[in-house]
Amino acid sequence: MKQLFLIGIGTGNPDHLTGEARRVMAEADLFLVPHKGDGKTNLADLRTQIIADVRNDATVALFDMPVRDESLPYIARVDAWHDEIARIWTDTMAQHPEARKVALLVWGDPSLYDSTLRIAARLHPKPDIRVVAGITSVQALTAAHAIPLNTLNAPVTISTGRRLRDQGWPSECETLVVMLDGTCAFQDLDGAQFDIWWGAYLGMAEQILDHGRLADVSDRIIARRAEARAAHGWIMDTYLLRRLPEK
Amino acid sequence: MKQLFLIGIGTGNPDHLTGEARRVMAEADLFLVPHKGDGKTNLADLRTQIIADVRNDATVALFDMPVRDESLPYIARVDAWHDEIARIWTDTMAQHPEARKVALLVWGDPSLYDSTLRIAARLHPKPDIRVVAGITSVQALTAAHAIPLNTLNAPVTISTGRRLRDQGWPSECETLVVMLDGTCAFQDLDGAQFDIWWGAYLGMAEQILDHGRLADVSDRIIARRAEARAAHGWIMDTYLLRRLPEK
Repeated sequence: MKQLFLIGIGTGNPDHLTGEARRVMAEADLFLVPHKGDGKTNLADLRTQIIADVRNDATVALFDMPVRDESLPYIARVDAWHDEIARIWTDTMAQHPEARKVALLVWGDPSLYDSTLRIAARLHPKPDIRVVAGITSVQALTAAHAIPLNTLNAPVTISTGRRLRDQGWPSECETLVVMLDGTCAFQDLDGAQFDIWWGAYLGMAEQILDHGRLADVSDRIIARRAEARAAHGWIMDTYLLRRLPEK
Repeated sequence: MKQLFLIGIGTGNPDHLTGEARRVMAEADLFLVPHKGDGKTNLADLRTQIIADVRNDATVALFDMPVRDESLPYIARVDAWHDEIARIWTDTMAQHPEARKVALLVWGDPSLYDSTLRIAARLHPKPDIRVVAGITSVQALTAAHAIPLNTLNAPVTISTGRRLRDQGWPSECETLVVMLDGTCAFQDLDGAQFDIWWGAYLGMAEQILDHGRLADVSDRIIARRAEARAAHGWIMDTYLLRRLPEK
């Protein structure tokens, strides 16, 4: 039986790697690395660099990420895409039959808004899966701002930009962390009712932070985000919204 | 101005330490370490051990944790306790006036259900605070079970046992992670409607895992938890509940 290591590597800062990630990387016979298709060339380079730092003798198999079929509805599109990636992994591993321990490096943590576990579940025969936790952009955000995620004994919800845009503010929610938001969904909220803590390229040299009353900083964040995206060719950002107590 | 490093160290596995945690620990002039009062002696030892592993030349100042005044209501009790801890930190730091960079090691991540940032905010003069993210028990739980935290594009809520017990299942919630639950609040839910993934001593040699339909495993988890707590003298556990789709 093959072993598949899904290793969280944090948000792009090699210093986010845990001792466990290094230890498991040291055991791997083969690293599967997507080398294009995500439009984030320097991220792909960073992944290769992290492998080289830990394992200068690593066997790395690069693979092309398939293109999503934009004609399909959202869930069907993602399902078909995951099937296709699983097929590519299978083919790539077949080219390295001697590799028993296969590693995939995952941005952030494999548990949070990441497809790797769902793709791995499609493999036949089923590999033995080991997950190594990594620092998420949620944690990189709160660390950079030096703020707690929750208020005292209160819950926190983590969600996506798509959901905030389509469904609005969740009921009974005080603290919301929004990930995967390409369209600044916060701009549809009543800016007087929320504080925002925003961060892009978290943990990396390019890191940008902003925070304040949403009404005051919303336009500034939208502008800074657009500028940074144009300058770098890509952006990854995350933000925390805290609803102000009712008066 | 003093620098205060709040360093997330993960859930008790020294292998959870990130490169950043090691680097920041290497810079610290003084480590403040609580040496009793939390009833978890081997955890206190583990913290000292982690410091010794990274810095065999460390200056460690042990301090006693104050006792909470159980006669006060919850929020007032926690507030008074935090004030008292801030006073003890101030006194302890005053005994090491030469130490400019002071470090505190935090279980999990300083952002999540941890008081360290709230206590640090009470210090005068205000130190410059640097937070280092660490692996939380939420991540250690999903990694150990090799499960995703969220379902596809769906939100996740993180909350406490106290809140689940007092307020029941949050509205519109599919995935709930419960922390700080001393009373197995899941036993008040309709067990046929939920799957549970439970873990105790996550990431440590003593780790215990269980999962299944809540109705089937609830009693078993309650019994295993009680046994483990009796055997070790303390327990730290976390669980994820996923509501089944309506039929």
